[in-house]
Amino acid sequence: MEASQVEFEHPRKAFGWAARDSSGLLSPFNFSRRHEVIGIVAEVGSKVEKYKVGDKVGVGYFVESCRSCQNCIDNLENYCPKHILTQGDKHIDGTTTYGGYSDSMVVDEHFVIRIPEGLPLDAAAPLLCAGVTVYSPLKYYGLDKPGLHVGVVGLGGLGHMAVKFAKAHGLKVTVISTSPNKKEEAIKNLGADSFLVSRDPDQMEAAKETLDGIIDTVSADHSIVPLIGLLKSHGKLVLIGAIEKPLELPAFPLILGRKLVGGTLVGGLKETQEMIDFAAKHNVKPEIEVVPMDYVNIAMERLAKADVKYRFVIDVANTFKPTS
Amino acid sequence: MEASQVEFEHPRKAFGWAARDSSGLLSPFNFSRRHEVIGIVAEVGSKVEKYKVGDKVGVGYFVESCRSCQNCIDNLENYCPKHILTQGDKHIDGTTTYGGYSDSMVVDEHFVIRIPEGLPLDAAAPLLCAGVTVYSPLKYYGLDKPGLHVGVVGLGGLGHMAVKFAKAHGLKVTVISTSPNKKEEAIKNLGADSFLVSRDPDQMEAAKETLDGIIDTVSADHSIVPLIGLLKSHGKLVLIGAIEKPLELPAFPLILGRKLVGGTLVGGLKETQEMIDFAAKHNVKPEIEVVPMDYVNIAMERLAKADVKYRFVIDVANTFKPTS
Repeated sequence: MEASQVEFEHPRKAFGWAARDSSGLLSPFNFSRRHEVIGIVAEVGSKVEKYKVGDKVGVGYFVESCRSCQNCIDNLENYCPKHILTQGDKHIDGTTTYGGYSDSMVVDEHFVIRIPEGLPLDAAAPLLCAGVTVYSPLKYYGLDKPGLHVGVVGLGGLGHMAVKFAKAHGLKVTVISTSPNKKEEAIKNLGADSFLVSRDPDQMEAAKETLDGIIDTVSADHSIVPLIGLLKSHGKLVLIGAIEKPLELPAFPLILGRKLVGGTLVGGLKETQEMIDFAAKHNVKPEIEVVPMDYVNIAMERLAKADVKYRFVIDVANTFKPTS
Repeated sequence: MEASQVEFEHPRKAFGWAARDSSGLLSPFNFSRRHEVIGIVAEVGSKVEKYKVGDKVGVGYFVESCRSCQNCIDNLENYCPKHILTQGDKHIDGTTTYGGYSDSMVVDEHFVIRIPEGLPLDAAAPLLCAGVTVYSPLKYYGLDKPGLHVGVVGLGGLGHMAVKFAKAHGLKVTVISTSPNKKEEAIKNLGADSFLVSRDPDQMEAAKETLDGIIDTVSADHSIVPLIGLLKSHGKLVLIGAIEKPLELPAFPLILGRKLVGGTLVGGLKETQEMIDFAAKHNVKPEIEVVPMDYVNIAMERLAKADVKYRFVIDVANTFKPTS
C-alpha cells in the first residue's frame, strides 16, 4: 500500500489471479497493479500522514473519487458519480483497477481504512463491503435506535451481517425468508428474535404493521408490496439488493402510513471507518470460510449455488510468494 | 362548536346542503349534526379549556381519533387507524359525520384549530386540508431548509399551495407540469423560480439530478421514473396525490443515489396549528374563489373540469339563516 504521489507511476510489479477469458475461470496472472483488500502497510509515500509501515489496513468498494463534488465534500464518496471501483474499473490514468486477488496494491491513503486492534484480518475483509452496506442504511434511515423492530429480508452475505449489526444496535430483529429451513440458523446462530416465512400468507398477515424498518438484501425478482404491509406507519423499506426488474409500488400505503421506500449503496470512507470501529467494539464479525487462492474457481461455483455460510475470504498472503 | 362532554347528545339541530341521492346534486337538508369547517365559537362546554365564545377556529380533515395509539400520543392523529373523517364517516356513537356545508357543528376542542389574527377566514379554510397536506411533507422529509431546490408536480389546489409554502421556507421552486401554458401563472403569479414541461424530453434531460426533493400532487396515472431522474443523490420524491394504479419503481436509482419515494397524509393537530401560524406569519394564502352555498352544484361541475383557481370556498355564513 502506497500513497498518492506514486499513483501515476506503477513501479510495483504484482502477481494475482484473474478471469482472463469468457470461461469465467480464474488463473495466475502477472500485472502492474495498485490493489489489495486487507493487508499490512509495506511502504508509505513521503506525504502519507495517516498510516505507517506495519499498520493493518483495508480497501473497500472503491479506490478514488472526484474529491470536489458535494458528495465528496460530505464524506459520501460512495455517491460521487466519478468514483472508481476497486476492481474492473478505469483509473484516472486510464489503467485498469485490478481488485484484491493479489500480493500487493497501491492506494491513496484517503481510501484506506484502519483495521482496529482485536478484529481478525480475515473477519475484517467482508466488513469493508457487506458490513458497511448494511450498517449505512440502519444509520441513514434512523433504524439504529435501541428498541426498534426491523426486518431483514434474505439471509445471505448481506442479510446475516444486517442481523448482526441490528442486534449490536439493540434492535429487535425478524428475519424474512422464503426458506423455512433457515429459521434455526437465523435465531440460534445469528441471534435474530423471530423468523417469518414470506411465502406463508398467515404468518405475513399476523405480522402486518409490526416493523419500524426493513433491510431488503434480496436481488432476485420479488414483490415489495407484502413487505410494505409489514411496516408500521412511518416505516422504512430500504433496498440494498440490486433488483433488476422494476418493482410494483402502490402509492396508497405510502401516503396513508407515511411509509417510504429507499435505498443505499455501501458507505463513504468516514462511515466505513466508523462501521469497522463499531464492529470491533461490539464484536460484530461475519461468518466466513477461509480458502486458499487456488480454491477460487470452486468457491465461485459454490457461490453460484449459494453454498457458503456466508462469505468466502481468500487467504492471499499464505498462497502467494512475495514478488520482490 | 362545543366540547367533548356534549358529543354524545346531539342537542343541536342544524341545517345544511347535502347530496341526498345518486345524482350527486346537493340540496337543502335538515339534520342533527356536529360539523363546520371555519367559524366562530358559539358555545363551549364546561370542560373546554382552549377556546372561548367568539374565537375564530377551524376543523380539518378529521374530528376524532383513538387518542391512545402511538400515533395519537405522538401528535400524529392523522395516522391513527381509527381517526374519524369530518365528512361521510361514522362517529364513535354510530352517527354519521356530516361535514361543513352547514350553519353549525360540534367538535371536541382537541380537533379544533385556532385561526391566527390577520388571516382572513375564507383564506384559512383551504389551509386546513390543502395547506397542511403540502406543509407536512416539506417538514417531515427535511425539505424546509432555505436554499434547497424542490420540484412541485401539478399546479392545482395542492400544487399551488406547495409552491407558496416552499417559497415561504426560502426554497428554490420548479413547477413540473404537462401544460406549458401554466408557466406564466407558476412564475409570475405564484412566485415559482422555474417551470419544466414534463412531456418535453429535452427539458427533462437538462434538469436531471438538479432537485433535492419533489412534492408530487398529481393523482392521475403517471410515471414517477422521470421524476426520480430529476432528483440529486439523497433526493426525496414525496407522493401526496392518491394515485390508484401501482407505480413502476426501478430499484437501481434508489440504491445508486440513496434516493427515496415516500408519502404523507394531511397532518396532525399540532402540525396543523403550526402550519396555520406559519401561514399567517409569512402571508401564505391560497388562491380562492368564494361562492354562496347555492352555487355548490355549479362549483362541483367546474371542479370536475378543473375550472377553478385554485379552491372554491363556500360562504356558508352569508347563505344560511341562523337555525335557532
